[in-house]
Amino acid sequence: MLLPAYTEQYLRYLEKEQFQGQPKSLYDSMNYILSLGGKRIRPILVMAGNSMAGGNVNAALPVAHAIEIFHNFSLVHDDIMDDSLVRRGQPTVHKKWNEPTAILSGDNLLIFAYKYLLNYDGVNKDLILSIFSDTAVKICEGQQFDMEFAYTEGITEVHYLKMIEYKTAVLLGCALQCGGLTAGISLEHSQLLYDLAIDIGMQFQMMDDYLDAFGDSQLTGKKSGGDIIEGKKTWLYIKSQELNSATHLWFNELSGDARAEFVKKKWMDLQLDKMILDKSSEYRNNALKKIQAWESLGYNSEVLQEILDFLSVRKS
Amino acid sequence: MLLPAYTEQYLRYLEKEQFQGQPKSLYDSMNYILSLGGKRIRPILVMAGNSMAGGNVNAALPVAHAIEIFHNFSLVHDDIMDDSLVRRGQPTVHKKWNEPTAILSGDNLLIFAYKYLLNYDGVNKDLILSIFSDTAVKICEGQQFDMEFAYTEGITEVHYLKMIEYKTAVLLGCALQCGGLTAGISLEHSQLLYDLAIDIGMQFQMMDDYLDAFGDSQLTGKKSGGDIIEGKKTWLYIKSQELNSATHLWFNELSGDARAEFVKKKWMDLQLDKMILDKSSEYRNNALKKIQAWESLGYNSEVLQEILDFLSVRKS
Repeated sequence: MLLPAYTEQYLRYLEKEQFQGQPKSLYDSMNYILSLGGKRIRPILVMAGNSMAGGNVNAALPVAHAIEIFHNFSLVHDDIMDDSLVRRGQPTVHKKWNEPTAILSGDNLLIFAYKYLLNYDGVNKDLILSIFSDTAVKICEGQQFDMEFAYTEGITEVHYLKMIEYKTAVLLGCALQCGGLTAGISLEHSQLLYDLAIDIGMQFQMMDDYLDAFGDSQLTGKKSGGDIIEGKKTWLYIKSQELNSATHLWFNELSGDARAEFVKKKWMDLQLDKMILDKSSEYRNNALKKIQAWESLGYNSEVLQEILDFLSVRKS
Repeated sequence: MLLPAYTEQYLRYLEKEQFQGQPKSLYDSMNYILSLGGKRIRPILVMAGNSMAGGNVNAALPVAHAIEIFHNFSLVHDDIMDDSLVRRGQPTVHKKWNEPTAILSGDNLLIFAYKYLLNYDGVNKDLILSIFSDTAVKICEGQQFDMEFAYTEGITEVHYLKMIEYKTAVLLGCALQCGGLTAGISLEHSQLLYDLAIDIGMQFQMMDDYLDAFGDSQLTGKKSGGDIIEGKKTWLYIKSQELNSATHLWFNELSGDARAEFVKKKWMDLQLDKMILDKSSEYRNNALKKIQAWESLGYNSEVLQEILDFLSVRKS
């Protein structure tokens, strides 16, 4: 079991690296968002990538932290854009402080992400900075796509999958790949880690969509059908519209739980519950093939199985 | 005359380096803010720093562009925070598009500033990245200080000068210093360029405050007394409060032009108009001493005199 040790090691590093500076509100809000917890999956992926490539995990910590800081920057700004009130059971930064402070807090987090990468003095530094920057751009693009989808007609599955890949999966890819690069492997080999983590990310996004519509709310801890009630254009919505062009009308007639129940039944009639599980399995199988390819290069992938299990037991 | 050539060279580079990508709104808004013009003083300072250190100006262009992109990132986000409607006679990004797009547009500009620095392949690259990052952090801090001053009592001249230095002057310092570094000079010598540009920046901030209160609106193109009408805590306000603790009351009794006229008269009675010009001259003299020190190191500073003249004729 490597993950508990990784988590503990990262949390110790995080504790040691608290932001310090003035004005207080700026640095307090940055420390606040990083203190809210979560599974720390991104820094763990960096450490896992390093370990899978036979490296020394300590060397990967500044990179792991940079990616976690970047993730928290995106949370702070996304919460403003979506006007979310709560993040991990606590008030969001723009609600606890105010919107201007949250904008600056995010900006400063983004700069600090770069500062940690620039302070990393191990191998493949230029490559890591370049991959990180390209990933960061994709994440901005993904968030903009996501916002535009809300008022755009004719979104296809291809559009949706690209949006999800950019908004969520690429940072997981970047984390595992950069972790591998801190162990000194080649760009070519590290690319396999990127692709592999993308598949894992896409699988879990599909499972998220599945669980939201068809999951047991007692197990997931989330309101069942939340995405349907919000009218979100998820994979299920888009696929449903493809199969039945009246889909959007199902969202107009009812609201709240009644809408959720109605749409869920329609989707089960269309067998969308099975289709999305198939889609999720497809990504999982792709990931497993890449894990085999990774092992055939002579590397180990022990820790990755732990990560898959770790992600599977998540409740939210 | 070097400046017209520099400006033209930078504008050609800017034209060539238009952002391209999807979603369209994200990249359109990034190109829009960069197209709004302005004197391009920051990229010109980079080119000037390079030239003053005997370098090849072409090598400095990616750094010049990175700093101009960073400046535009800060404009987009500051305009959201201040809810400004107009920037250089055109609608601000969050008004022309919307606030979420403006947040992302700024975020992506900040990432692209780093991308240009990372693509710079000349000398002193690590130093430039490090100075740029430290400067970027200070600018966030300065903006947060500025916002907090609006509702903080007891702001002193020291606080105000630090805020202005961080919010405005450090990017000019960073520009001139990094320009020098692209010519391969030492960190120690480049520090003189930084300090020198800070003095220039502070001088012009003082002139801005002076002109706002006491300038001829026909010459400045700005409404006379705008800062007074807004109740902004400028150097004049803070110094006035130091000299006469009833200052804040002068802002309560009247509003609009009547307030501006009343406060201006009070300030002239306190000789604040002369004091702020003295403060401005103090910074100018400090800058001139540093220019002499620069020349005594065997470098030239011809272009800097042009820049001082160029900044002096500004209308806004």
